[in-house]
Amino acid sequence: MNDTTIAEATIEADPVIPAIHIRRDFHATPAQLVRAHTDPELFVRWVGPDGTSGLRIDYWEGRTGGGWRYTGSSDGHDYAFRGTFHEVREDRVVQTFTWEGMPDDVSLETMTFEDLGDGRTRLHAKSLCDSFEARDAWLRSGMEVGVNDGYAKLDRMFANGDV
Amino acid sequence: MNDTTIAEATIEADPVIPAIHIRRDFHATPAQLVRAHTDPELFVRWVGPDGTSGLRIDYWEGRTGGGWRYTGSSDGHDYAFRGTFHEVREDRVVQTFTWEGMPDDVSLETMTFEDLGDGRTRLHAKSLCDSFEARDAWLRSGMEVGVNDGYAKLDRMFANGDV
Repeated sequence: MNDTTIAEATIEADPVIPAIHIRRDFHATPAQLVRAHTDPELFVRWVGPDGTSGLRIDYWEGRTGGGWRYTGSSDGHDYAFRGTFHEVREDRVVQTFTWEGMPDDVSLETMTFEDLGDGRTRLHAKSLCDSFEARDAWLRSGMEVGVNDGYAKLDRMFANGDV
Repeated sequence: MNDTTIAEATIEADPVIPAIHIRRDFHATPAQLVRAHTDPELFVRWVGPDGTSGLRIDYWEGRTGGGWRYTGSSDGHDYAFRGTFHEVREDRVVQTFTWEGMPDDVSLETMTFEDLGDGRTRLHAKSLCDSFEARDAWLRSGMEVGVNDGYAKLDRMFANGDV
């Protein structure tokens, strides 16, 4: 891990709209964070809780107007996530997100990458759900484990020069 | 118009989340309504207020995971809209939507097509904005003119057998 400090992500419910806010600092540039979220070969190496492996990209167009889908397996069951990249730019990624186990639930995720200088970047992620019930179900789902495990893997990839 | 009755769309603010709900009946099947929203050659013939013409498709992939963008001109100024199709299925279209004049505002639009029988279908559209301020600005923008004019054009296309 070299000098990289592993930090817990801040995960908060929005007080007014059915959204979740995540904030997390990285030893990386905004451009590296955009690549980590839009290059499928990089993405499958860090997303999800520890123990996630063998994710398969079904399709992936990491650009404004592109679609994506990936599949994993757990205890012999396949699970899939699917969405689109509404926008990919140098400091911002906006995408839709559906877990196909609840195919009619769609969230809209806006990630902005704030350059803190000294090679550090603050990720601000906002997940807008279409009801407070759906938002609160995500918050109760144990999502913080996947978020924190995933970002810790990403920390190690940045420290290793993999991105 | 034959026996087609032009109806005003019902446009309502959601009381709980920053969304707008639109409801409108058509003399058409769900499949015809999906085509009218996903086939670019049909879409540019009806979308927008009366007087809209010359819309240009910049790109358009009318399928799950596809992107779209179109441009128009008014009083010598170009304006563009852009988004992605998160999902296209036989009774439902989910898409993102941005007017590039406010490039950081993104809404998530879910349209469901309820078969009423006798060749009639009820369109339920839900536009989820990412703040109440953005939602209320849309409601104050005069959007009902474009919505009602556009749907009246679509009524005529259905009556003429164009879809």
